[in-house]
Amino acid sequence: MKKNKKIKAAILIIGNEILSGRTQDLNVSFISNWLNQKCGILVGEVRIIPDIEKTIIKNILELSKKFNYVFTTGGIGPTHDDITAKSISKAFNVKYEFHKEAYSILEKYYGKKKFNDGRKKMAKMPKSSFLIYNPSSAAPGFKIKNIFCLPGVPNILKSMIENCKKFLIKGETTLSKSINLHTVESTIARELGKIQKKFKSLVDIGSYPFFRLGVIGVSIVLRSSNKKKLIDCEKNIKTMIKIKKIKIFKN
Amino acid sequence: MKKNKKIKAAILIIGNEILSGRTQDLNVSFISNWLNQKCGILVGEVRIIPDIEKTIIKNILELSKKFNYVFTTGGIGPTHDDITAKSISKAFNVKYEFHKEAYSILEKYYGKKKFNDGRKKMAKMPKSSFLIYNPSSAAPGFKIKNIFCLPGVPNILKSMIENCKKFLIKGETTLSKSINLHTVESTIARELGKIQKKFKSLVDIGSYPFFRLGVIGVSIVLRSSNKKKLIDCEKNIKTMIKIKKIKIFKN
Repeated sequence: MKKNKKIKAAILIIGNEILSGRTQDLNVSFISNWLNQKCGILVGEVRIIPDIEKTIIKNILELSKKFNYVFTTGGIGPTHDDITAKSISKAFNVKYEFHKEAYSILEKYYGKKKFNDGRKKMAKMPKSSFLIYNPSSAAPGFKIKNIFCLPGVPNILKSMIENCKKFLIKGETTLSKSINLHTVESTIARELGKIQKKFKSLVDIGSYPFFRLGVIGVSIVLRSSNKKKLIDCEKNIKTMIKIKKIKIFKN
Repeated sequence: MKKNKKIKAAILIIGNEILSGRTQDLNVSFISNWLNQKCGILVGEVRIIPDIEKTIIKNILELSKKFNYVFTTGGIGPTHDDITAKSISKAFNVKYEFHKEAYSILEKYYGKKKFNDGRKKMAKMPKSSFLIYNPSSAAPGFKIKNIFCLPGVPNILKSMIENCKKFLIKGETTLSKSINLHTVESTIARELGKIQKKFKSLVDIGSYPFFRLGVIGVSIVLRSSNKKKLIDCEKNIKTMIKIKKIKIFKN
């Protein structure tokens, strides 16, 4: 097995509330940063889809084939619109049934008397799923094949994410450097393009204009798994900045 | 032609900075709300993809077939990583060339002397595109076939969105009602499921737990294009709330 693997994941956000614009998604940036920084895994695609069974099935099957891992958020609660677990069972043609350990975790958490049908539903998942424990509100997520199912509420998701780690193969870490400049993109576009050509796909150079506190600037972001190339590329950019007499933001 | 049409759009966010988690996307919720409220158009799917030509082409072709409209954000600036316009030209097999009016807008804005290669690049787009004017920073977006290409910077995008309206056919407006309850989802899950069954696909009932200022609650969101059904469904839910003696949040 190669030591440094390119491992890629997709994120599948399931929920009408995100699609309709009612709720601002915060999970994409959190999961993506976590995968990147803690696991050396790059997110290659994100999809946001509605709570419709056939749509979930189609996207799960497509992304599951295309990526090493798929992280889903949303649709694993107690109500009628929480259909992620059932849809994934259908996608993989496995039984949708009570997970014994999940059932006992939830029964213990709520107490036998208050363990109603809605709460019991949260213990139902595709047969042979592994649990992703939930330290904040008990109801576990689950992993089946290369799919990790997490809840949609950002704080609960955050408390659970570390429990995904034991199932993941670590990839090569992507290193990054940012340089914030007192300039506009078009001033450096030509030279930046030349530097990108020089470093080919070894360093990914991104250029992002910003407007902050009344100041216009450009963030140059370099990303690479090769430290030497990254530093070399940074040098090239700093030389270009010097020649063009562009100021660097101090913060 | 039917008066009330179900018109659906997709949003395609193009940019490594969103995928890597470096930048928090704000455009999905803005575009989705705008389409919904101002145009009666529902967003059926969102994808976030990297700045890779073949990936952009594949997604443009897929979404363009599947939806009435596709809104892209990002990748129309002056730098080497801005490849949206070129990729879309390739997707539709049309020339990628200077748009005369865009060229003259930008030349006027920057002045002949400062109209460098990077800035000129922003006037290149698929042949026969229509311009989407940009009141804040001049560089126009464009429309080709059913694709609307907008920039990634949220404030600039916001200033341009009204200029898309003249190209859009209005759909039926989706009405919505929210009720915020002092309860947890599992308490109402069963009854809510029954009410959803009763109203079938005529009213979409969403249930979203929240934790706000130390208080736990559930937002019930009803969405429908049929006002009578929406009010009827709301009545059903309020009756259920009364029977269960659940308090409603006042705000």
